[in-house]
Amino acid sequence: MSLLVVGSVAFDSIETPVAKRENILGGSAPFFAYAAGFFGPVQMVGVVGDDWPKEYTDMFAARGIDTSGLEIVPGGKTFRWTGKYHNNMNDRDTLDTQLNVLGNFEPKLPEDFKRARFVFLANGAPSTGLATLEQIQGADLVVADTMDLWIKTTRSDTDALLKKIDGLVLNDSEAKMLTGELNVVTAGRKILNLGPKFVVIKKGEHGAMFLSEYETYVIPAFPTENVVDPTGAGDSFAGGMMGYIAAQGKLDSDTIKRALAYGTLLGGLCCEGFSLERFQQTSREEIDKRLAQFRNMASF
Amino acid sequence: MSLLVVGSVAFDSIETPVAKRENILGGSAPFFAYAAGFFGPVQMVGVVGDDWPKEYTDMFAARGIDTSGLEIVPGGKTFRWTGKYHNNMNDRDTLDTQLNVLGNFEPKLPEDFKRARFVFLANGAPSTGLATLEQIQGADLVVADTMDLWIKTTRSDTDALLKKIDGLVLNDSEAKMLTGELNVVTAGRKILNLGPKFVVIKKGEHGAMFLSEYETYVIPAFPTENVVDPTGAGDSFAGGMMGYIAAQGKLDSDTIKRALAYGTLLGGLCCEGFSLERFQQTSREEIDKRLAQFRNMASF
Repeated sequence: MSLLVVGSVAFDSIETPVAKRENILGGSAPFFAYAAGFFGPVQMVGVVGDDWPKEYTDMFAARGIDTSGLEIVPGGKTFRWTGKYHNNMNDRDTLDTQLNVLGNFEPKLPEDFKRARFVFLANGAPSTGLATLEQIQGADLVVADTMDLWIKTTRSDTDALLKKIDGLVLNDSEAKMLTGELNVVTAGRKILNLGPKFVVIKKGEHGAMFLSEYETYVIPAFPTENVVDPTGAGDSFAGGMMGYIAAQGKLDSDTIKRALAYGTLLGGLCCEGFSLERFQQTSREEIDKRLAQFRNMASF
Repeated sequence: MSLLVVGSVAFDSIETPVAKRENILGGSAPFFAYAAGFFGPVQMVGVVGDDWPKEYTDMFAARGIDTSGLEIVPGGKTFRWTGKYHNNMNDRDTLDTQLNVLGNFEPKLPEDFKRARFVFLANGAPSTGLATLEQIQGADLVVADTMDLWIKTTRSDTDALLKKIDGLVLNDSEAKMLTGELNVVTAGRKILNLGPKFVVIKKGEHGAMFLSEYETYVIPAFPTENVVDPTGAGDSFAGGMMGYIAAQGKLDSDTIKRALAYGTLLGGLCCEGFSLERFQQTSREEIDKRLAQFRNMASF
């Protein structure tokens, strides 16, 4: 069924202990959309400048990703982020941020996007999420991501958004920050009191956890040595998870657990290259093969 | 089949964010033995002073743990450790260590202990492990634990021990320290070059990983909010794992994966009370019930 994502689109310049790249495609929406695209069609909403190459639009179209909601601002410049990862591949320093057209982003959903059944508000200002939801007509499932920046700087918008979504996806450190709790399970349970019916806590190389009032699911990460660039892993996790859920069109326990597994695999795959490189070299067939390996590693 | 453990026995004084206790039973051997005792008989080797209460000997005997290898040094005092945990329940400060009789510990195995088929060298000086192995006659499986202290201070003994064991159990931070690698999978693979045929990397609240030349297994932790005292969790993990392996008497992939799951559950249970308290309130039946819950949480 139809899956909509609203999020940032960026040109990233990234240095990791392995290599360095400049002006590569990044942002929460592209990673999410590309990962979700392995499972079905995706509608992508975002904003870029007229430095946006037409090849990228074509690339998304070729993967079943509808970019008619991607606003191209004439004379504007696309959001740029420059960062450097530490040797542990987890911590990173932001060296430069140029918001550019993202600074005034007001999501405008094409008419057919407004009837999306599955909606993901990828990492971005909570006001963008709220403005999106005003345009959405009766979605089955609305899930949002958040990050430390919004928890710290726009807490009231974050709280307002939490009351309007079905599910929240966030990192373990962000879950602790949002609730003031040091135990990640306790933090997750407290988040359920803030509005969402379920929360998915991403733990990076340690896997993920799903909590709702009556359900708890846990999944380890797929072990990988080949970490090239972790940028976008969390968005790709969400894309794999939501892509599978939208394709199934339901949210029973088997679907949720399988969705967490796909999310984990897509998040891991993302780290094996810069930008969308690794995704461009894979297929649903390879992903399903990895799922079978993963199940063999993790079943008991 | 027979399972032998050689390790430290301690009286701990512990402060956690939850509560404080003085002179409670601790040490790697008691936690390991008690956890393993849910799966079959255990032979325990260690050293204590004559401050050792006879009730403890009786308590172990009641759980099928043979303490005839526990040396009681007349006029000696048992090893004492005092520590305080930080609010995150992971980091801790050692406030005081009194080695006492542990400082001159030379393991002396009773005759029937020397023919143990499964041997676990719990956390302790690697020289203790080497002295134990000199007395062992043709065990099927020898597994050792280690810690940062021995990696840093007695590296040549550690290296010698690694060449004589089948499996190594250690924390993720210790695996990184032992190999100088920052990726935990890479670190695990490097450890296989140092001697052991397999390595089990414990990740605390993030679960565990098993690596051998041809096998990789991963398991998340059982999610728990009720962390009272994490002391002994790693030893209890090893006890659950080795106890199940010894009971099965084999090391095929299904046994290994189930053993990791039991290890994870016993490590988690240990944290729910001080000393052996939580173990004393549980049963193999409750543990198996938790295993079924855990499988439902983690299967996909």
